[in-house]
Amino acid sequence: MKLVTATLQNEQFIGLVHGDKIINLQKAEKDIFEISSFPTTLLECIPLGDKFIQNVKLIVDKINVEEGAEGYLYPISDVKLLSPIPRPMKNIFCVGKNYRDHAIEMGSEADVPEHVMLFSKTPTTVIGHEDEIDPHLHITKELDYEGELAVVIGKKGKQIKEEEAMDYVFGYTILNDVTARNLQRQHKQYLLGKSLDTSCPIGPYLVHKSAIDNPYDLKITTRVNEEVRQDGQIKDMIFPIEQIISTISQGTTLEPGDIIATGTPAGVGNGFNPPKFLQPGDVVEIEVDRIGVLRNRIMG
Amino acid sequence: MKLVTATLQNEQFIGLVHGDKIINLQKAEKDIFEISSFPTTLLECIPLGDKFIQNVKLIVDKINVEEGAEGYLYPISDVKLLSPIPRPMKNIFCVGKNYRDHAIEMGSEADVPEHVMLFSKTPTTVIGHEDEIDPHLHITKELDYEGELAVVIGKKGKQIKEEEAMDYVFGYTILNDVTARNLQRQHKQYLLGKSLDTSCPIGPYLVHKSAIDNPYDLKITTRVNEEVRQDGQIKDMIFPIEQIISTISQGTTLEPGDIIATGTPAGVGNGFNPPKFLQPGDVVEIEVDRIGVLRNRIMG
Repeated sequence: MKLVTATLQNEQFIGLVHGDKIINLQKAEKDIFEISSFPTTLLECIPLGDKFIQNVKLIVDKINVEEGAEGYLYPISDVKLLSPIPRPMKNIFCVGKNYRDHAIEMGSEADVPEHVMLFSKTPTTVIGHEDEIDPHLHITKELDYEGELAVVIGKKGKQIKEEEAMDYVFGYTILNDVTARNLQRQHKQYLLGKSLDTSCPIGPYLVHKSAIDNPYDLKITTRVNEEVRQDGQIKDMIFPIEQIISTISQGTTLEPGDIIATGTPAGVGNGFNPPKFLQPGDVVEIEVDRIGVLRNRIMG
Repeated sequence: MKLVTATLQNEQFIGLVHGDKIINLQKAEKDIFEISSFPTTLLECIPLGDKFIQNVKLIVDKINVEEGAEGYLYPISDVKLLSPIPRPMKNIFCVGKNYRDHAIEMGSEADVPEHVMLFSKTPTTVIGHEDEIDPHLHITKELDYEGELAVVIGKKGKQIKEEEAMDYVFGYTILNDVTARNLQRQHKQYLLGKSLDTSCPIGPYLVHKSAIDNPYDLKITTRVNEEVRQDGQIKDMIFPIEQIISTISQGTTLEPGDIIATGTPAGVGNGFNPPKFLQPGDVVEIEVDRIGVLRNRIMG
């Protein structure tokens, strides 16, 4: 179940991928069932949890036998996909150095963290699939990619136990934690170097957790201009998703729609000698099995 | 001009301090001018800028000559003051180690930053004046206060020049950047140790900048159980407000309602030998001239 936020002729809607088509969920519900139960944004649908998912399934079941569905079924190529959550309600939580080989490429063995390292990116960083990344050449010549699996929280919780953490996950998406390495280094704390406008492509799909039995089976690959740079396995995380959720929520309430970027594997531009930073015109693709490909070009 | 967000009998409203009374701005406008121009939250009023301030002044002028104003004038003691912005639209921007003596008390001369150090606190941390701070005893025995002047941004901007930065300020308030020192240390990046629920008292007032000619003239004092712990001068900031705004906005769009905590002077609990961390029952008061006193008790 791949959910999207999209626009068609400048009208924003929530949708579902259905083969090579997108179902406009609000229109479909109205046409088929003559009701309007869906809020207008995924951010508002997420807290509805299973009820929302069941309503989506009812529509899909009906569409499979339905004729004349043109009114709410669009070819994917006709719509513009936005980030599933175009404007999060708070900064995006990000885990630093959560893959051993990446921690080492950023420094040395001493950089492998003993505790979950958490920083954030402002909501103004978020863009969608195929949106362009501003290279901010006036302040950085060290723009770097970080392909990551992101978790979207489904319900409010505090002091969540690891064994219950997955109950609090709504689903998964792909996130590029674009980073200005010079600013990250210079300002010590990461917020600024991680919060340039357009530095957080998210999407294209928010995949409900029911479609992913085991996130640790997934592979994550990042390509720049079709050259494979990162080729990681989610199972190699130092701190698994359950531990991240439990650790944050010991003192900080997690809320529906919160986004947690779970860290990047080895192969960032900064890890090469000489470094391979992003240049205007470069195209970054991050692929995660069963979720999709998030593609963004560097402006210029 | 001291603006507040408050509740009276569980009804939330925006108000203005008027002597020992609070004017309910929406009610006053309706009663006096028979119009309703004010949005219902300060977060929505802030982007209106001068227009909002002028409308507030029209009400104040009228009230000074008005009889029988009981309907929209309440004794301060009757209302519950909330944080002026109870739920910010993103994490609060915080400047670390922005006073030389504080940087040194946290470590040594080597801790005095060369560049603005920025981290954030989640919106779930925000509480108001007289709300209680949860000590989170299950995860910290090193809860500490940090009295700070906070700046509230008034209009959207990017690549703001230092000489124009003050045009982007709406006003000032007081903020306690409550910190779990063990978590701040352990997780390296500050987000987690700075984001415990209730760890960001803000208020009691949002003072419009027109009431403060020069923020660098202000003194800031923090008392714990009436003992003076911090006694600083805003002019001792390493990076002044103009530079902070300019630095953030080089790559990150600032938006109306954004809150920037500008750093704390020397005298935090961690700086004493032995340290003086906060205990259940302690009362923390932060006073800034011409703004007010922000008071919070540690729960328990």
